[in-house]
Amino acid sequence: MSSAEQAAWIRLSLEPGLSPARARQLLEAVGLPQEIYALSRAQLQKYLDNPLSHQMSQPPSDTLESAIQATQQWLQQETHYLLTPADINSGYPARLLTPDYPIVLYAKGQLKLLNQPAIAIVGARAASRSGCRNAHDFAQQLASEGFTIISGLALGIDGAAHQGALQAGPAGGSTIAILGTGIDRVYPAQHQQLAHRIATEGLLLSEFPLGAKARPYHFPKRNRLVATLSQGVLVVEAARKSGSLITAQVATEAGREVFAIPGSIHSPLSRGCHQLIRQGAKLVESVHDIYEEIGQPELPDLSRKRVPTKPKATSSARFSGEARIVLETLGPDPMSTEGLLQYTTFDIPTLSQALVELELLNYIERRPDGRYQKT
Amino acid sequence: MSSAEQAAWIRLSLEPGLSPARARQLLEAVGLPQEIYALSRAQLQKYLDNPLSHQMSQPPSDTLESAIQATQQWLQQETHYLLTPADINSGYPARLLTPDYPIVLYAKGQLKLLNQPAIAIVGARAASRSGCRNAHDFAQQLASEGFTIISGLALGIDGAAHQGALQAGPAGGSTIAILGTGIDRVYPAQHQQLAHRIATEGLLLSEFPLGAKARPYHFPKRNRLVATLSQGVLVVEAARKSGSLITAQVATEAGREVFAIPGSIHSPLSRGCHQLIRQGAKLVESVHDIYEEIGQPELPDLSRKRVPTKPKATSSARFSGEARIVLETLGPDPMSTEGLLQYTTFDIPTLSQALVELELLNYIERRPDGRYQKT
Repeated sequence: MSSAEQAAWIRLSLEPGLSPARARQLLEAVGLPQEIYALSRAQLQKYLDNPLSHQMSQPPSDTLESAIQATQQWLQQETHYLLTPADINSGYPARLLTPDYPIVLYAKGQLKLLNQPAIAIVGARAASRSGCRNAHDFAQQLASEGFTIISGLALGIDGAAHQGALQAGPAGGSTIAILGTGIDRVYPAQHQQLAHRIATEGLLLSEFPLGAKARPYHFPKRNRLVATLSQGVLVVEAARKSGSLITAQVATEAGREVFAIPGSIHSPLSRGCHQLIRQGAKLVESVHDIYEEIGQPELPDLSRKRVPTKPKATSSARFSGEARIVLETLGPDPMSTEGLLQYTTFDIPTLSQALVELELLNYIERRPDGRYQKT
Repeated sequence: MSSAEQAAWIRLSLEPGLSPARARQLLEAVGLPQEIYALSRAQLQKYLDNPLSHQMSQPPSDTLESAIQATQQWLQQETHYLLTPADINSGYPARLLTPDYPIVLYAKGQLKLLNQPAIAIVGARAASRSGCRNAHDFAQQLASEGFTIISGLALGIDGAAHQGALQAGPAGGSTIAILGTGIDRVYPAQHQQLAHRIATEGLLLSEFPLGAKARPYHFPKRNRLVATLSQGVLVVEAARKSGSLITAQVATEAGREVFAIPGSIHSPLSRGCHQLIRQGAKLVESVHDIYEEIGQPELPDLSRKRVPTKPKATSSARFSGEARIVLETLGPDPMSTEGLLQYTTFDIPTLSQALVELELLNYIERRPDGRYQKT
């Protein structure tokens, strides 16, 4: 991506008064950000009200310009990345291509983790010792068997899950922390060291601009990203009304599996998990309960003992029409996204959605060269 | 019931070599036991093989005769009862009229408890302290709100459930202990005092002859009775392979609700409960979770606070054709079983089954005078 192209994406994400929903409408109607910013005020008025159409037809204000420059300066450092939906073949996770996809994502660390099998582990900040131990142990085992562990860097369960994943060592998966702040900040302060280690061995990810502070309204968005980026969400300890239950609800709506660990009926921190189980979440005693639902990733080390996983009985019933067409289009040889776009005549979001679906159901896989093939 | 009639029932249940299944076939084909024992050898040969048809056409052997006499002597004591399917209007519980109904039941204590709303509470003998406390507390609360608590008098969860129900005091429900021995024996010996108290304030029940010792093969039968006599079974603590899970399975097959209390994933005694929940048992944190499924009994004391209960959404779909006919036959006034038999032209088992069904779904209720009316 050229520097000017990148600057246009950053400006679009920072443009004062422009909501993400409106920005996505412009991307769909006009095209890339550079094309949007090439429009005249009169052309922009087709899509936007008056002050905004004027503002966007002009060069950025001084404040905006210096924010863009600061961001580009940050991006020049090693392992610092900006991901946009235009990077669908080079990092931006296909799983995020829902109708309210993030326009930009800031990433710091091991970018390859974004497109690996991933499980979110979430739960209470004021977790019990045994809750934290469970989060740690599940994360460690899942990571050592090839899963990337996604969580929100919060105190309690989140932190324990990140720690457990890091403990699994470099042979297995790793961990992604999704932030409710700008990627250049750490919240809570107690997790400064942990965040530093994740930025080296794992990945930090944020959809908020550099410098953004932790705001209460950031966390639902953060939770949304945690849920949609994962194949399934494991809730370890959660009170009856808590952010973890919202994450689980988003996961269900996005077609992800929800898992919950039960506990004593006398512990308020088990109530949320028990509620999820009553609503259909899978009760989990060990990682094998998770593998039963979403399979186990293929690991390069084949000497490792594998748990036999059964295909989901409901898989074929869940197929969308688009997914079926993609599967039929894919011959015995791998095919690139460009090829699939051409043969299926789908647009990018439709194709991506179908690819995600087939990937989640283990019918296709993405090869290291970015092409897809049947499993 | 005349003494001769009673003696014939006892003989039929004790007849050496006659299986319960064969005895039920005879009852269906011939009629009451007295009529069976009035048949000639030639007539009995229509139903039975040779040695047995000969044996049953003769007066009982001395051994059998003295067993019958001992049983009738036991029955002369106060609050000692023999119940047979002929006593469907005077004690034998309609809920038990499944294809493999017990031919005789021995009872000692408060007979009226047999036809009241009932919940079974079962679980591990080697239960934890917190498991026993849960069993005790659920039993006490359910009993104080009008449920009779059914269990198997075993150590651990069973004993705690009986104790909790007795603690609820005479205002509420009470408890029924179902034995794997003859009703004149107590097993385990540690529960001698408890059994004595249940025989006074609650009810002891057994389908085994007087003097029968605890045999391993008695307990599946005992568990079957626990499950079918209850509207629902609550499993408090159970290992992955245990008698409690069999009780739960019988309950499911008999159309009863199964409830399970979750616990730590590190406790082997929670495994069985977690397995039940994964198989569809309702996860229970409090008695309200039970009321949600099977309602709460009407108590004479109306000043008591009630939890609002919602009718089950699936109720009407579950109706059998016979139940519908019974409901249509029942006008606004209460009707006796004899009246219903006459109008519906059903046989006793069919009518009883339909009545049980409608009672469980709370469409009809049995009045103190034994007649049924719509709720």
